[in-house]
Amino acid sequence: MMKNYFWGLALVLVILGAVYSGYRVHDFVRNPKIGEPVRFEPSVMPQPRLMELNRERFQIDRQFSIGYSSYLGEKSLLAVNRFMKNLGTISAVDFAQQLYTKENLSSEGSLLIMCTREGETRLGESESYTLNISNDLILLRAESELGILHALETLLQLATSDERGWYFPGGKIEDEPRFAWRGLMIDPCRHFISKETIMRNLDAMAAVKLNVLHLHLTEDQGFRIESKRFPNLHLKGSDGDYLSQDDIRDIVHYADLLGIRVVPEFDMPGHTTAWFPGHPELATIDSVYTIARTWGVHDPVFNPARESTYQFLDEFIGEMAALFPDPYFHIGGDENNGKHWSRSPEIAAFKKEKKFKDNHELQVYFIDRVKEIVKKHGKTTIGWGEILDLGMDKAIITQFWWPRMKDMEKALAAGYRGIISNGYYIDLFETAESHWLRDPVREEYIKNPELEKQILGGEATMWTEFVTDELFDKRVWPRTAAIAERFWSEKSLWDIDTMYERLDAVSRHLDRLGIRHLQIYDAGLRNMAGITNVEPLRTVMDLLSPVRSYRRHQLYIEANGRKYTQATPLTRPVDYAWSDAPAARKFNQTVRRYLDAPKMNAALHSNIKEQLELWKNNHIALEPLLKARPQLREILFHSENLSKASAIGLEALKFVKKGKTAERHWGEVHLKTLNAMKEPAGEMELQILAAIDQIVIKAANVPVE
Amino acid sequence: MMKNYFWGLALVLVILGAVYSGYRVHDFVRNPKIGEPVRFEPSVMPQPRLMELNRERFQIDRQFSIGYSSYLGEKSLLAVNRFMKNLGTISAVDFAQQLYTKENLSSEGSLLIMCTREGETRLGESESYTLNISNDLILLRAESELGILHALETLLQLATSDERGWYFPGGKIEDEPRFAWRGLMIDPCRHFISKETIMRNLDAMAAVKLNVLHLHLTEDQGFRIESKRFPNLHLKGSDGDYLSQDDIRDIVHYADLLGIRVVPEFDMPGHTTAWFPGHPELATIDSVYTIARTWGVHDPVFNPARESTYQFLDEFIGEMAALFPDPYFHIGGDENNGKHWSRSPEIAAFKKEKKFKDNHELQVYFIDRVKEIVKKHGKTTIGWGEILDLGMDKAIITQFWWPRMKDMEKALAAGYRGIISNGYYIDLFETAESHWLRDPVREEYIKNPELEKQILGGEATMWTEFVTDELFDKRVWPRTAAIAERFWSEKSLWDIDTMYERLDAVSRHLDRLGIRHLQIYDAGLRNMAGITNVEPLRTVMDLLSPVRSYRRHQLYIEANGRKYTQATPLTRPVDYAWSDAPAARKFNQTVRRYLDAPKMNAALHSNIKEQLELWKNNHIALEPLLKARPQLREILFHSENLSKASAIGLEALKFVKKGKTAERHWGEVHLKTLNAMKEPAGEMELQILAAIDQIVIKAANVPVE
Repeated sequence: MMKNYFWGLALVLVILGAVYSGYRVHDFVRNPKIGEPVRFEPSVMPQPRLMELNRERFQIDRQFSIGYSSYLGEKSLLAVNRFMKNLGTISAVDFAQQLYTKENLSSEGSLLIMCTREGETRLGESESYTLNISNDLILLRAESELGILHALETLLQLATSDERGWYFPGGKIEDEPRFAWRGLMIDPCRHFISKETIMRNLDAMAAVKLNVLHLHLTEDQGFRIESKRFPNLHLKGSDGDYLSQDDIRDIVHYADLLGIRVVPEFDMPGHTTAWFPGHPELATIDSVYTIARTWGVHDPVFNPARESTYQFLDEFIGEMAALFPDPYFHIGGDENNGKHWSRSPEIAAFKKEKKFKDNHELQVYFIDRVKEIVKKHGKTTIGWGEILDLGMDKAIITQFWWPRMKDMEKALAAGYRGIISNGYYIDLFETAESHWLRDPVREEYIKNPELEKQILGGEATMWTEFVTDELFDKRVWPRTAAIAERFWSEKSLWDIDTMYERLDAVSRHLDRLGIRHLQIYDAGLRNMAGITNVEPLRTVMDLLSPVRSYRRHQLYIEANGRKYTQATPLTRPVDYAWSDAPAARKFNQTVRRYLDAPKMNAALHSNIKEQLELWKNNHIALEPLLKARPQLREILFHSENLSKASAIGLEALKFVKKGKTAERHWGEVHLKTLNAMKEPAGEMELQILAAIDQIVIKAANVPVE
Repeated sequence: MMKNYFWGLALVLVILGAVYSGYRVHDFVRNPKIGEPVRFEPSVMPQPRLMELNRERFQIDRQFSIGYSSYLGEKSLLAVNRFMKNLGTISAVDFAQQLYTKENLSSEGSLLIMCTREGETRLGESESYTLNISNDLILLRAESELGILHALETLLQLATSDERGWYFPGGKIEDEPRFAWRGLMIDPCRHFISKETIMRNLDAMAAVKLNVLHLHLTEDQGFRIESKRFPNLHLKGSDGDYLSQDDIRDIVHYADLLGIRVVPEFDMPGHTTAWFPGHPELATIDSVYTIARTWGVHDPVFNPARESTYQFLDEFIGEMAALFPDPYFHIGGDENNGKHWSRSPEIAAFKKEKKFKDNHELQVYFIDRVKEIVKKHGKTTIGWGEILDLGMDKAIITQFWWPRMKDMEKALAAGYRGIISNGYYIDLFETAESHWLRDPVREEYIKNPELEKQILGGEATMWTEFVTDELFDKRVWPRTAAIAERFWSEKSLWDIDTMYERLDAVSRHLDRLGIRHLQIYDAGLRNMAGITNVEPLRTVMDLLSPVRSYRRHQLYIEANGRKYTQATPLTRPVDYAWSDAPAARKFNQTVRRYLDAPKMNAALHSNIKEQLELWKNNHIALEPLLKARPQLREILFHSENLSKASAIGLEALKFVKKGKTAERHWGEVHLKTLNAMKEPAGEMELQILAAIDQIVIKAANVPVE
């Protein structure tokens, strides 16, 4: 009888708990109390330069229509139809006007678009726009079509609903980008990234106002573009996974319509192993080459001593230059370790003849020759930091990652232009916040603020050692939206908490547009669990992040006695874990706020307590599954630790709540225990331990070291 | 203090409840009790003809390798590499052997493949195979490569894990298909279905051993294939959404490698509106045509009286015949309403000249002429039921939907062959079970069992009035796997419960292979909710199905005063609701089992009670969200009813449990209330009401009518 009563009560509580506990990943809209209406707050990322919302509301209904005055080009027409389709997807409103064409788009409509001229997809084109939203009319003005495209993306993010229906909040927006070059670099080489994935990511880029797609098309691990002139390059260098020239044309065309430039990169003289199975005569060392299958810097390198190398590159670059209309052309130039050059008698003789004192001078010679070829084909060279040379043509652009950051100021002062990728390596499993806080113009490197104008912008870089086509969206989004905001919005934006609110909103927005970051995570949990009820697994996974930076390589070797290869399955917990474990971030934020003033924050105390209770009991439920799925054993350590750490946290929380101080020894013992849990396992770290440390420190009043 | 105790208790229960309640959609693996190990049961769909598993186990580890003796063709090589990649995805085992090529695939391996000859992708090719799995060796034998492909799909589905790691269960499988023609028809016309979606669905088809992709390429609402000979067909008939000839070549090539034939369909003389914007001279009525935007049978029709029509079709069919290597060529022939023919003086004159007494004879004349053209280009005609004519060439195949089913036996007896789609219209929102229970050979139509050999097989048909590219996988899978089983497996398979076990397993399997049916549902819930914690919404959605058959059209008109169009957003609850609401099915099954013998089934009583408690309390939590999202108001009625019906169910359940009988009047009142809840709303029906009826009937002992 007691048992029945217990379970009856339990059920009601289970229901209330399930509904209101609110501990689901990515659920950043607070669950309402019973009876309280749900409120959606409009939000835009990147944050517009000026956005003043008011209490007017433009109702989105079936009669909604678009009018267009003055210039109407192909870009605007696509933008208008994409906007209507996406607005339909989001709101499910069945608009009377179905498909806009040049013939049926009139100058009247409830959304009125005024644009004076075509928007060219080129560096420096005007991208500014203004939006005025009132009860009856939305007025959208821009100089070029590119402003229209951006304005429609802003407007789409503003679409909101409440009990009275779908609407755009009234207000005024004036917006323009801070930097003209806002890029995402995709490496389709280390793992192949398909045309479909690239096309889908163009939609996401457009949604957050990025305007450069940098395609890194050749690497040690794959030659990923079709060459009709030298077909053995892609046929022997790609395992059959490459972008055809038709694919490239489709990508470039669609990107152009979205106002996104496509800059190709052919990395040389190093990072070129995959060129050599098809064309070994290009290599420094005479050998039979195969595609590289492991990561890191490889030795194979172009032979810079032979004229035939430059003749080949002349033809190849000519072919590629014709395929990519953008005037900039990236030749890489990074990470040549010079080992093969040092081994080659031919190179030694050449260096002697040319009076080069080291491989660096030979590298400069090679890059200079290639720059001339690029120029001959009507393009301007870009290269990674290593190509920087204060004697070079001022038009050449340096893409700064870590090398030569210290020389940057000197180069900018000399009149060179740069784009910044240092700080935006999204392959390194860092948090959105850590990227977002790093401005392209950092005092550490640039003392003279005048030089900011020499920085064209930046690029997030998605290197694909740990990313497959299937995982791609998950590693790029939503973090890249935060970087896009750093490139677009005012430098004065520094509040992390509101950044994360915008990031959470744009993450849901991208999900609605068909970007797959959230779907990949759910499917990954199901794949690993083998069952569909993945909630206890999700609870742990939501709190884990891959180890940061390049540590995964070494940890894998330590655990397995071998390196990662191109074929290693990326379907383990570390592959699905978020770089920016959002549930951990939310918990850590709550703990920080609570500990600031425990007595003032009773509600936060309850949140933390509930959360820790849930975590404390999670492992016992999850353990049988972890044991039955070999790949899930990699989180056993963390799952156990989560329960143990939560128990410690609960104990400490009691002291804090009561305002009592625990014994110093108690605190030290627990801190030591927590510290041992910070070890990585399965190449992951549990992201809530520092917050629990803080509760213990507060409870035992342990002095912070 | 009481409150604190209450909430403390609540939390523990919430945790236990969340972990063990097991009420998540598609979670058909029972959650274990604490401490109990998780067990995965190997399962294969379609069920092999003979499968005897034993206690041996073949451990899947890094050393796993494949050896190949005798014939090794391009199909097998792709199959081997797909198998290794998929096995890696599922198990995360990092196999030492990475990429198999003709050069490195030796005759030794722990999985040994023996195959005597190439498998041709043609009707009637041998598809049988045997598998012997022991502790140390897997032996796979087949006559043709197609058997190898099927065997590897079977083996992949068998991969299982437990505390000792990943393994294949030992045993013996002997398998071959019952029917040679096992198809899925895709209509990329009404809504455009992209190349990528078609390619992805080829993987799913291969996984369940379907071997015909029937592409319905032209319709009133879209001409979806590039014609180089008559480019105005696709340019003016598709809004730019069509499959290029390169796309078709890629699809046909990949399908061929998977052993899947591609049969193109060009539906005529009706269903041809989209041909006419580009070529109005083909139409019966002289007019300016535009693409049809609404559904149903449209009047525009080819002009069968002009020789120029046949000259055009000769050239067009010649072009298309060269693009599709399969010897069968589908010309549609269905649903010509004859209205334009009856209106045309030119047609009247032609009928008089030819002495045709009605439009039917004219249709027969047209179809005969087209068959001859098809034959001239080296192909054999297929058509829908309407083309059946006992005087036609015996090689011609009839695809039976509903028309002419009654003439089928006569046709088969006369030596004609048929394929069956009647019963397999997956666009009609029916359950997997209702399709699976309908054998291609039904006594209702075929009295003479000898005639079975004249039935080549069947096709599931995915018409796309209510399916977009984004929704596609969700409407096709997993139900089509059940139809695939009906086409492949022994006729004697009739147990619905075990069918659903296999279906649930194969649904999870397809999810792991990248098929998007589950992902689309999750993303759809998030899109509609606008927040990520969609659990209360999921609870209702898991129990709703779209109204069956063609009712959605009429209900939409009644609710909105207008028809569905091609542009109506398909992002409402009815679009994301499962045809086969799995949580409802599970509940209904549990109720049925419980009511069979209430006293014997105390555990089932608890399950039902817990479930009803959860549902009873769901609406109050969900209501604010439903009100704040206009598209979710369409489920308000059902959400309220779910809570009310659950309350009734709980009341009735008490009587049943106690073995007492409620008053007859009480029962009748409640049945009436429940009956009113069966009305559709938002074009959906709540799928648990009949089960609650049964509890009430049992409780009050109401006589069943």
